[in-house]
Amino acid sequence: MPKPTTIDRLIAELAKLPGVGPRSARRLALNLLRQREQRIPSLVTALTHALEHVKTCSTCGQLDESDPCTICSDETRDTGVICVVEDVADVWAMERSRSFRGRYHVLGGTLSAIDGRGPDALRIEPLLARVASQQSREIILALSATVAGQTTAHYVADRLSALSQNEDGTPKDVSRNDSGAPITITRLAQGIPMGGELDYMDDGTIGAALSARVSY
Amino acid sequence: MPKPTTIDRLIAELAKLPGVGPRSARRLALNLLRQREQRIPSLVTALTHALEHVKTCSTCGQLDESDPCTICSDETRDTGVICVVEDVADVWAMERSRSFRGRYHVLGGTLSAIDGRGPDALRIEPLLARVASQQSREIILALSATVAGQTTAHYVADRLSALSQNEDGTPKDVSRNDSGAPITITRLAQGIPMGGELDYMDDGTIGAALSARVSY
Repeated sequence: MPKPTTIDRLIAELAKLPGVGPRSARRLALNLLRQREQRIPSLVTALTHALEHVKTCSTCGQLDESDPCTICSDETRDTGVICVVEDVADVWAMERSRSFRGRYHVLGGTLSAIDGRGPDALRIEPLLARVASQQSREIILALSATVAGQTTAHYVADRLSALSQNEDGTPKDVSRNDSGAPITITRLAQGIPMGGELDYMDDGTIGAALSARVSY
Repeated sequence: MPKPTTIDRLIAELAKLPGVGPRSARRLALNLLRQREQRIPSLVTALTHALEHVKTCSTCGQLDESDPCTICSDETRDTGVICVVEDVADVWAMERSRSFRGRYHVLGGTLSAIDGRGPDALRIEPLLARVASQQSREIILALSATVAGQTTAHYVADRLSALSQNEDGTPKDVSRNDSGAPITITRLAQGIPMGGELDYMDDGTIGAALSARVSY
C-alpha cells in the first residue's frame, strides 16, 4: 500500500466529517499534507482552542466560550421573548439575519420516531422551566418547515399550553407565566422566500402564502 | 455576535479546505463541536502525527512516512518502468487499481500559463536525471486526458527524447539510458471507460476509442 498508516488514519478521521466521503477525505488529506508545515499547525491550534474553550450554555443550549453564553448574559436583549430553535446552527442563522433581539432556546433536534428521539432527548423540560420562571411574554417556535420540525413545534406548543392548566386540570383561557401574565406562542410565517420565483415554488408553499396573504 | 472568536477561527480554518465554503465550514465546525470531547482529540492526534511523520519522497515526490518511500525502496518493484503522474492522488489511484508494479514519478501538477506554472515548477529535471541513471526501459506518461495534462505529457516526452541526442546535436534513432539501452515512452490508452454508455460519451472519446480500436 502506498498510503502509510499515518495518512490512512488522517483520511479516516476526515471521513468522519459530515458530507465527506472517502474520496473527498483523500482530497482534504492531500490538500493539508501538501503544505503541511503551514496548514496543519493552524488547524490543530484552532481545534485545540475550540476544545478547551467552547462550552454548551446551560441556559439556552447554544455553544459559546462562556456559560451562560453571550446572548443569555446580554442585558440589552429582551428576556421576555424566547425563540425556540432546533439547533445551534439555527441560532447562528437567526443572528445573521439581525432581526431578533430576544433570547434563544436550542432543543437539540426534532422528535423522530425513526431515530428514536423522543421528548426526553430534546431540551423541552428546561424550556418549560425557563418559560415559567423567566416572566416570558412570547415563545417563538422557529422550527423548520419540515414534517419533523412542525411535529416538534406542535408538541412543544402543547406542552407550553399545559403550563396554563388550572390546578383542577381545566385549561386556563391563555398560557400564563409564574407572575400571571399571559404567554403568546407564535411560529415563523410561511410563504414565498425572498427572491423566490412563483413558478419554482411547490404547491404547499404557494397554498400557505396564499392563505396567509396580507393587505397591500 | 453569537459566534465567539474561537468558533469563528475554527470555521475560518475549516473553510481553507478545498471544496469547503463558509456554509459547509460552519456545518463541519458544529459537527465537531457537538461531540467535541470525542471528535476533536482524535482529529488533532491524526493531524499532529501526519505533520510529524509524513515526508515527501526525494526520489519520486510522493508522500510517505519514509524517504525514500515504500514504493521507491520496494525491491520487488520494477525499477525499469517509471510511471509519470501529475499528483500524489494519482499514485494512490494507480495503486488502488493494483495493475502497476513499477516506480512512480510525481510531477507536482501540469504546465499552466494561466497559473504561471512553467517547467521549472514541476519535477521534470529530477525525472530526466532518474531516467538517465536508473537504467529505465519504459516511461509511462499517465497524465490526465485534459488539455493541460496532454500539453504537459507532450513537453515531458520532448524532454525525454532530447536525452537521446548525440553529442553533435543530431537525434539518436531512439532514446537511450546511460547504459545505452533504448527507452520506450508510452501513454495511457484513451477510450470508453468501464461501464461507460456510448450515448453519454463525448465526440472526442468516441473518436479516440474508434481510431484505437482493437481486433476482437
